[in-house]
Amino acid sequence: MSVVQMVKIVGLGAVALTLSVEWLGWLFCRLWPRKISRGPLKEVFFFPTEVACTERLFTPDSPFPCPCPLPHNVNTSFTRLLGHILSASSSLDLCVFAFTNLDLSRAVLALHTRGISIRILTDMDYTLITGSQIGAIRRAGICVRCDSGAVHMHHKFAVVDGRRLITGSLNWTLTAIQSNKENILVTEEPDLVLPFITEFKRLWDVNDPARRHLPSIAEKTASLVL
Amino acid sequence: MSVVQMVKIVGLGAVALTLSVEWLGWLFCRLWPRKISRGPLKEVFFFPTEVACTERLFTPDSPFPCPCPLPHNVNTSFTRLLGHILSASSSLDLCVFAFTNLDLSRAVLALHTRGISIRILTDMDYTLITGSQIGAIRRAGICVRCDSGAVHMHHKFAVVDGRRLITGSLNWTLTAIQSNKENILVTEEPDLVLPFITEFKRLWDVNDPARRHLPSIAEKTASLVL
Repeated sequence: MSVVQMVKIVGLGAVALTLSVEWLGWLFCRLWPRKISRGPLKEVFFFPTEVACTERLFTPDSPFPCPCPLPHNVNTSFTRLLGHILSASSSLDLCVFAFTNLDLSRAVLALHTRGISIRILTDMDYTLITGSQIGAIRRAGICVRCDSGAVHMHHKFAVVDGRRLITGSLNWTLTAIQSNKENILVTEEPDLVLPFITEFKRLWDVNDPARRHLPSIAEKTASLVL
Repeated sequence: MSVVQMVKIVGLGAVALTLSVEWLGWLFCRLWPRKISRGPLKEVFFFPTEVACTERLFTPDSPFPCPCPLPHNVNTSFTRLLGHILSASSSLDLCVFAFTNLDLSRAVLALHTRGISIRILTDMDYTLITGSQIGAIRRAGICVRCDSGAVHMHHKFAVVDGRRLITGSLNWTLTAIQSNKENILVTEEPDLVLPFITEFKRLWDVNDPARRHLPSIAEKTASLVL
């Protein structure tokens, strides 16, 4: 067989292979659309969720079983949410209106102990509600900034490791998790995550206390004139 | 040129074309990742938004310019949200905690006039707040169901035409749109939209007034025994 014939046969084989793979892929997508992995992480959880023990998420290496009376090893919307937060390996940026939930506060403190960089932005008025965890979090040395405007800082989103967005209607409160009808959406889709990262940075800078208390150049000039 | 030669040339041409398209696509993705459309619609809007005239969205074919003093032809988070709602061509399923915004109410009524199928699920307590639009919407003949549980139906999502999800922290109120810090995420990503469609159907069925007032089989049996 000559070299030219070989080239032609290999060429035709490549056409057949390429087109077959393309067409088989298309056919598979049409027949079993749900079985194809559709890129970045995308999950939705709804609340209220049943109450289950979360101890295993905080102490996964403990050799002792948890003695509490709650159901164990149950996968609920809340344990999945908690799992996403505890999965942080470098940073957690949290922008939340109300924060009273003890398990979520414990998760944030655990991340802080592990050396994860944490920034929390919250509504000033809602740091004063009964059971607010913001005081305990601040006392642990975590950086918290408050939006003290006349209106609400009503966001409820978090960005884990600069790539995983957790957002929805759910405030970080016990009522929201165990009683209300709520939703949480978790995604690593860059088109959805990046705008939240930018907005967090903007709000974080706007609510810098140093910036708020420093007189502006205009104010300084006015005081000099006066 | 013989037929066999023609087939071979066409075959080799097809190889070259297929592989070139594949490789060029890959190269383009690597060089300009942001310029490639990444599948289904994905948008994020933040609030508060500047106030702008929305008249053109309701009367796009009007030959007369709007005489109101607000800025015109301005693209804000709110006009984009309104645009997504008014884009409905077959259905709107809305699950919202508080609904007082007049523009959003006008949009819902406009869709109803156009024959769009509308279902609204809301929190019973919040239908009683000042400025609630639920009464006006019901009077127009739109089907509304209320969650009358002791806790909040705190969702703020809508599904347009069974494929476009609008969700976030934003209630459908003037304060949320013009004052609060809020977010809205709009997507047609099936993995995110489908769970919300299922949850809407579940909540819609659970809050069917006919179902609530009909005694269950257990209750009927008990009354027969008694």
